[in-house]
Amino acid sequence: MQFLLEVVDILTNYVRKTFDRSTKVLDFHHPHQLLEGMEGFNLELCDQPESLEQILVDCRDTLKYGVRTGHPRFFNQLSSGLDIIGLAGEWLTSTANTNMFTYEIAPVFVLMEQLTLKKMREIIGWPNGEGDGIFSPGGAISNMYSVMVARYKHYPEVKIKGMAAAPRLVLFTSEHSHYSIKKASAVLGFGTENLILLKTDESDSCACYLVKWFCCVSAVQGFMPVFVNATAGSTVYGAFDPINEIADICEKYNIWLHVDGAWGGGLLMSRKHRHKLNGVERANSVTWNPHKMMGVPLQCSAILVREKGLLQGCNSMCAGYLFQPDKQYDVTYDTGDKAIQCGRHVDIFKFWLMWKSKGTIGFEKHIDRCLELSEYLYHKIKNREGYEMPQHTNVCFWYIPPSLRLLPDGEEKRQRLHKVAPKIKAMMMECGTTMVGYQPQGDKVNFFRMVVSNPAVTRSDIDFLIDEIERLGQDL
Amino acid sequence: MQFLLEVVDILTNYVRKTFDRSTKVLDFHHPHQLLEGMEGFNLELCDQPESLEQILVDCRDTLKYGVRTGHPRFFNQLSSGLDIIGLAGEWLTSTANTNMFTYEIAPVFVLMEQLTLKKMREIIGWPNGEGDGIFSPGGAISNMYSVMVARYKHYPEVKIKGMAAAPRLVLFTSEHSHYSIKKASAVLGFGTENLILLKTDESDSCACYLVKWFCCVSAVQGFMPVFVNATAGSTVYGAFDPINEIADICEKYNIWLHVDGAWGGGLLMSRKHRHKLNGVERANSVTWNPHKMMGVPLQCSAILVREKGLLQGCNSMCAGYLFQPDKQYDVTYDTGDKAIQCGRHVDIFKFWLMWKSKGTIGFEKHIDRCLELSEYLYHKIKNREGYEMPQHTNVCFWYIPPSLRLLPDGEEKRQRLHKVAPKIKAMMMECGTTMVGYQPQGDKVNFFRMVVSNPAVTRSDIDFLIDEIERLGQDL
Repeated sequence: MQFLLEVVDILTNYVRKTFDRSTKVLDFHHPHQLLEGMEGFNLELCDQPESLEQILVDCRDTLKYGVRTGHPRFFNQLSSGLDIIGLAGEWLTSTANTNMFTYEIAPVFVLMEQLTLKKMREIIGWPNGEGDGIFSPGGAISNMYSVMVARYKHYPEVKIKGMAAAPRLVLFTSEHSHYSIKKASAVLGFGTENLILLKTDESDSCACYLVKWFCCVSAVQGFMPVFVNATAGSTVYGAFDPINEIADICEKYNIWLHVDGAWGGGLLMSRKHRHKLNGVERANSVTWNPHKMMGVPLQCSAILVREKGLLQGCNSMCAGYLFQPDKQYDVTYDTGDKAIQCGRHVDIFKFWLMWKSKGTIGFEKHIDRCLELSEYLYHKIKNREGYEMPQHTNVCFWYIPPSLRLLPDGEEKRQRLHKVAPKIKAMMMECGTTMVGYQPQGDKVNFFRMVVSNPAVTRSDIDFLIDEIERLGQDL
Repeated sequence: MQFLLEVVDILTNYVRKTFDRSTKVLDFHHPHQLLEGMEGFNLELCDQPESLEQILVDCRDTLKYGVRTGHPRFFNQLSSGLDIIGLAGEWLTSTANTNMFTYEIAPVFVLMEQLTLKKMREIIGWPNGEGDGIFSPGGAISNMYSVMVARYKHYPEVKIKGMAAAPRLVLFTSEHSHYSIKKASAVLGFGTENLILLKTDESDSCACYLVKWFCCVSAVQGFMPVFVNATAGSTVYGAFDPINEIADICEKYNIWLHVDGAWGGGLLMSRKHRHKLNGVERANSVTWNPHKMMGVPLQCSAILVREKGLLQGCNSMCAGYLFQPDKQYDVTYDTGDKAIQCGRHVDIFKFWLMWKSKGTIGFEKHIDRCLELSEYLYHKIKNREGYEMPQHTNVCFWYIPPSLRLLPDGEEKRQRLHKVAPKIKAMMMECGTTMVGYQPQGDKVNFFRMVVSNPAVTRSDIDFLIDEIERLGQDL
């Protein structure tokens, strides 16, 4: 127990330093450097045990060479920040070390999950919060659940007979949606060529293209549309598909509508911003990751389904050694048979505890503040020299070094600009001062994507990011 | 930070009491009792925040009404125990709060995973530990990976064209294998009727049935065998399929051989017991859950694949916003594109830290000790009045109350015996003294399944279990 308290000492010091802006975000080393053993940090596993003193050193080194994702200047991922209540919740979860599959061994956590999912369904707007849901290991798996459940709803015989029992099924999503929809189409046996990637027009709407598809193509024999994904908060731009327009089409043609709100779902907590998801209550299923915009520690992702019984019907295998019908309690509380997993990690407690601690209004304040900071950044760089950006919820932008500003638009400028963001990012990481994501998209060369989900971020951190980009990039 | 330390105080007290045998394993309540609010424990979520004092009370209540899976008398699941080093590792993991998909934000954890998987492959016996692998959210998902990779190896076009591009594929597993193989066949679009459940004979071998199938049925047009699962440590009996015999057939017919060692994989660490998995080095893939017999905290499951590149080929979608090719480091260290998840929880650190602390020999001692305790139990009840059991690695047995002992064998006895285990289990839970699993299997009525994976268990705890079963069951 003394050992555990010494680890706690290491961890609390780490947390304090993470919130201190004079601490580096990371101390970057290449893989081969770490593998060679930095200052005696030996990653290799041995036959003989190490002393507890050495284990403590290993813990310190692990943190030393890692990345401080809770640092106010870490903007690299949709998930960032380190909520202390959430962290305490996760420590309790590890200590309880149990499994969500039965009420028998996780009575409190199972009930917390049930109540929290109901609350989330109420917030989506389903009558009385009716429906179903489950926490899953991440948004990609949640999205996979949605495709599975859609298939089960329309072609339940596929569970037993396989895909051969269905016609050629096609799925729809916008070209800017998360790649997990494509992954699901490969995994589940649809095939990626049967996922139609809808173009988005100027205002990022894929609905009109969906309409066109149905007008022109659906008559082609053998194609059977079964699933449409509408993205609420795309990964790169933070764009929102027009759910109501898409829902009209889905209802007309009796197609499953899924809303991937992995990133944008958090906006449902804000009276000011939830209008971006107008129509979400018409979805058949929704992915919503509290571990993203709501700042809950990793991992915490929910798949919510409007119709009850489908998750169970789709996944149930009735394993006799876990889901005995002759238990002394009401076994409808056992959750395992609606999951694609057997054992399932307890992801609910940290979220439940944060909700208790902040209240619904606390999450609302957090969301409003994150969007306000994005807005601040947007206005800061809008008219600043050396920046270009398309307007979106996530602030996406190019920094154009002075040497490129006078170049005429064209292939040479594009190619040189493409290399700017990776170079600045690499320098940031070497310096350890801040981290922000970048990527190309479609015909756009590499640009930065700036997101705020960490409550510790202030305007000064946004200012710092811009100053740092200019400091590192001015001579490129 | 003061708050966090107060939570630590609650948690360390909880751990101390968990190891104290005078503490109850659980304080059982029915779902409706907990939902009604036990002694003010209110599970409902509210708009307004709660005070930190109340949050601490919530933490205490959550633990109070939960189940102590680390208690030396909790035998209910294949995963049990609470290793303090592993727990410290999990607390550090939560504090680091990062994601396995890129080296960029998890440099140390990514390398630990790589080295640990290599070590596991060496222990399996693959030359130089070559091959591939990934930690996944549980054994069911690991098994699903194996089926996916097998399909990709033989029918790579399915990824793009869907199951329609392949003939009617069939999968094989024994009737005693884990239900996740069946789940995978449903999820991936094979259909459960295309999973052939092989009977097992007296010595639990499914190999002879597999041979028969190939001799008699494979000629039937359109059936294409693609995957065989051999179980190393079945969930209920702890039985081992004869891997070498099955491998002979798989090699002859060029079929993917998977070994599901979720439960039994740990035996590979023991020179004394690893012979039960003889032939495992001939497998194309292996599932191995350190969170089971090796006592690592939940969750920690690995899928290991002999041929490199298949996981990547099967799952890769090349998402531009995560896996930029123009990063400054060697991007082959990014792991995300071989996963079916996008974000992936850090499951490696606690395992790595335990391995450092125990050494390979420490895991070996732990495994040997668990099996010795099972052996002790087996001999204890073998000739004891009122017990019957089939011989297996997991000790499975019926307790026959005195009132049933004189009954002639037959339907009445069977029906009454079927009710004994659930009744004793329910009483155990009400008393909170111990927990052990039970289930029916095939034509066998409900029997207890006793497994030991917790290092805190001693012979006295085994004695206690038997005494408790007799105390609770004698008047049934």
